[in-house]
Amino acid sequence: MTALNATHDPKLRSWVAAANVAGTDFPIQNLPFGRFRTAGSSEAFRIGVAIGDQILDLRATGLIDTDDMNVLMNASVKDRQALRAAISAGLAEGSGQQAAWSKALLAQAQAEMTVPCRIGDYTDFYTGIHHATTIGKLFRPDQPLMPNYKWVPIGYHGRASSIGVSGQVFKRPQGQTKAPDAVAPSFGPSKRLDYELELGFLVGRGNALGEPIAIGDAEDHLFGVTLLNDWSARDLQAWEYQPLGPFLAKNFASTLSPWIVTTEALAPFRAKFERPAEDPQPLPYLDAPSNRASGALDITLEVLLQTAKMRADGVAPVRLTLGNTTEAAYWTAAQLITHHTVNGCNLQPGDLLGSGTLSGPQPDQAGSLMELTLGGKQPVTLPNGEKRTFLEDGDTLVMRGWCEREGAVRIGLGEVAGTVV
Amino acid sequence: MTALNATHDPKLRSWVAAANVAGTDFPIQNLPFGRFRTAGSSEAFRIGVAIGDQILDLRATGLIDTDDMNVLMNASVKDRQALRAAISAGLAEGSGQQAAWSKALLAQAQAEMTVPCRIGDYTDFYTGIHHATTIGKLFRPDQPLMPNYKWVPIGYHGRASSIGVSGQVFKRPQGQTKAPDAVAPSFGPSKRLDYELELGFLVGRGNALGEPIAIGDAEDHLFGVTLLNDWSARDLQAWEYQPLGPFLAKNFASTLSPWIVTTEALAPFRAKFERPAEDPQPLPYLDAPSNRASGALDITLEVLLQTAKMRADGVAPVRLTLGNTTEAAYWTAAQLITHHTVNGCNLQPGDLLGSGTLSGPQPDQAGSLMELTLGGKQPVTLPNGEKRTFLEDGDTLVMRGWCEREGAVRIGLGEVAGTVV
Repeated sequence: MTALNATHDPKLRSWVAAANVAGTDFPIQNLPFGRFRTAGSSEAFRIGVAIGDQILDLRATGLIDTDDMNVLMNASVKDRQALRAAISAGLAEGSGQQAAWSKALLAQAQAEMTVPCRIGDYTDFYTGIHHATTIGKLFRPDQPLMPNYKWVPIGYHGRASSIGVSGQVFKRPQGQTKAPDAVAPSFGPSKRLDYELELGFLVGRGNALGEPIAIGDAEDHLFGVTLLNDWSARDLQAWEYQPLGPFLAKNFASTLSPWIVTTEALAPFRAKFERPAEDPQPLPYLDAPSNRASGALDITLEVLLQTAKMRADGVAPVRLTLGNTTEAAYWTAAQLITHHTVNGCNLQPGDLLGSGTLSGPQPDQAGSLMELTLGGKQPVTLPNGEKRTFLEDGDTLVMRGWCEREGAVRIGLGEVAGTVV
Repeated sequence: MTALNATHDPKLRSWVAAANVAGTDFPIQNLPFGRFRTAGSSEAFRIGVAIGDQILDLRATGLIDTDDMNVLMNASVKDRQALRAAISAGLAEGSGQQAAWSKALLAQAQAEMTVPCRIGDYTDFYTGIHHATTIGKLFRPDQPLMPNYKWVPIGYHGRASSIGVSGQVFKRPQGQTKAPDAVAPSFGPSKRLDYELELGFLVGRGNALGEPIAIGDAEDHLFGVTLLNDWSARDLQAWEYQPLGPFLAKNFASTLSPWIVTTEALAPFRAKFERPAEDPQPLPYLDAPSNRASGALDITLEVLLQTAKMRADGVAPVRLTLGNTTEAAYWTAAQLITHHTVNGCNLQPGDLLGSGTLSGPQPDQAGSLMELTLGGKQPVTLPNGEKRTFLEDGDTLVMRGWCEREGAVRIGLGEVAGTVV
C-alpha cells in the first residue's frame, strides 16, 4: 500500500488558484491522469493532469516523453511515486516551474476528454454484496446468495470495444426478451434499461502469463480508480444469461469517468477491511494482513438523474442515491487482482476491472434502478412529479464520487454522465 | 457470400512446387494470411501468405504497404477479393512475378509465427448443439438444453490477453474447487483440465456503435477462420460459474492456429444450413435466404493427443476424434455476427468469435474429454496403453482442419497444438 507523504500534506496549495477552492474535485493533493485535446480540434489525445479547473499537459512539462497512457501505467511504483512528487512540486505555490508550466495549462471547459487509456481487456466483478443479495432475492427468495459468493470473487469478462467516456450518448439496445408466460421470445427495444454504479479499477504494471500476483503485491499493480456505469438491459439479461452469463444485456455501452485517481492519491482514504465474524475466512491466497488493515476504499458515491423534461425546463440533475464504498464491497481491489491472476491469467496495463454494483446496506443506497424500484414494481417519483421504474429515452444518468476525511483535503473522482436516446 | 471465381479453379497450379502436392494444406486455392518472422530473429512480425511449404512476404511483393494485419482485415470485400486475385495471379504457374516473388519466400520450417492479428475482443459462443446437449445431460438429465438455446445464439465474453498461437506451452491452472460433499472449497491445481475443439471466426471490417449488422450483410464482415482450442478447467468452472458464467476456468490460455483461411478461400466448401423441422424458426433478424442456402461450413476437424511418454518414445500424436462442422453447429457465423451487434455492440477488425465446442452427433465425434469420458467416468485408452480422463502434464493436444469436396482442390486450416506443463 502507498504510504502517506508530502504530496498529501493538507497545507499544500497550488499556484493554480482554482485548485485551492474548497470543494474542488482536483486540489493539488489529487492529481489524476486523463487524456485530452482542445475541444473541436483533431489533435491526437495527450496525457493531462487535472488541477482545479485546468489540465496540465504533462508532456509539455518535460516530465514524460509519451502520449500513451498505457506506457505511463506500466511504470514501477517507485517511478509512479517519483512522477507524482515532481508534478506536485511543480504545481505547488512558490514553484520555480510556474512560469513555464502556466503555458502548459488548458481550461477543462475548453477540453475534450476520451477514455483514459487503451483498455485491452475488461472484467466485471460482483463485489457488491448488498446488490447481489437484493438481486438474488428477486430470483431466489430462499437463497439470495449463491454458495460460492463468500469464497470466490465472482467475475466475468466484459466488452472493451463499447466502453466510452463520460458524455457518451447511446441508442437503447434492441434484442430478444421473453415474458414468463409467453410461448416464444419477441424482438424489440429493451423496456428495462438500467444503470449500475461501479468503481473501475485500472491495472498498472501487468504480470506474465502463468505468473500469479500474490495478494501482498497486488496493490502495486493497481494504477488507479475511475467511476464506471455498467448499463444493463434487465429484460435481455433475464432471457439470455443461462448458462454462460450476461452478454448483449451489457455490451451495448459502458461509460467511464475521464480521470484516473491514482492509488497514491487515495492513500489517505483507506479503511480497515472488515467482514462479519460469522463469514468464512478467505482462502490463504486471498488473505494478507495489509489487505485486512487497509484494503477498503472510503469513497462516497452519488447517483443523479436528469430527464429530458428536466433538461428542457432547465432543472439540474436530482439525486437518486448516496452511499459509500466501504460498506458496499465484499472484496478489495487487491483481492480481485490476485484472484484474477491465480490461475496464471495475465493482466496488462490499462485493463479495467469493474467492482460490480456498489449498493449500500440501506434501500436508498441502491446502485441500480432494479434495486431501487424492487424489480420495477415500485416506481421512483422525482421532485417534478415524473416517475421512473427504468430509464426512458432522453434520460441522463450522472454518477459522482469523492473522498472526505478529517485531517485530509477532499479529493474527487469527477463524474461520469451518459444519455440514452 | 463470396462467389466462386478463377482463384478456385482446380486446374490452377503454382510455381511453388510444394503447393501442387496432393494433400497439402496450402495449395494456390487457399492463400491464408498469417504473421511471421525468421525464427530466432527479433524482427517485427510481417504479413505472410502460406503457399505449399513456403510463406510469401506480402509487403515484399508490393501488393500491400502495411505490416498490420488488422489494417488489412479492415479492407472492403471488393479490395479483399482484388488482393486475393493478385496474389493468386502472381503465384500461378507462368506468372511474370515468379523471379521477383521468389525472393519474397521464406520456408515455413524457418519461420516463427504469432497470433495472426491483434485481438481486441474475444467472444466465445456455444453453437455446438451436441456438445451443449451432452454437457447439459451431465448436470440436468431431464432438460439438457436451456429453453433459450434454440432461440438465442448463446455467447459470453472471453479473455483476449491470454490467447496464444499454436505451440503455446502453459502451466496447469490453479484455483478453487469444491467437492459436492465438502464443507468448504480447497485450493490447488486443476484436476480436470480439458480442451475444446472450436473454430475461431475473425472479424474483418467492423460496425459503428449503435449500428447493427443485418444478417444479409454479416458474411461481408467475416474475414476468415482459424482453429481454436478453448482450454477449460472443468473443476474450477463447476464451482465458479454461477451466476455469471465461466471465468478463471477459461482465461489461463486459449490457442489459435497461425493461418487465417479467408471467407473467399472457403467459398467452394459451403453447405446448406438445415435445422430439424420441429425446431423453431429463428426470429427474423437471424434469418435470411442466403444464410439458409449456404450458411454452413463444410470443414473436417480432427483432434490428436501426444503424451509425454509418446513424445519420449518417438510416437506421433494419435487421433482422439474426427468430425465435421456441418453437423455440429446450430448457428452460422453470419448469425453470430448479426446477433452480437443487434443491440448496437460494435465489432472491430481482428475481433475473435469462437464457435463453441464442435462435437458431432456421434460419441466418437466429441470435441472435449468431458464428453469423450462421460464427465471423467470412462477413461480413454490410447494405443500405447496409457489412459486419460483429463489432460496430464506434458500432454500435447493437436487439432487439425481441412476441406475436401468433389470438384474442388482440398485446402487445410493447418493445425493448432498446445502443451500443458
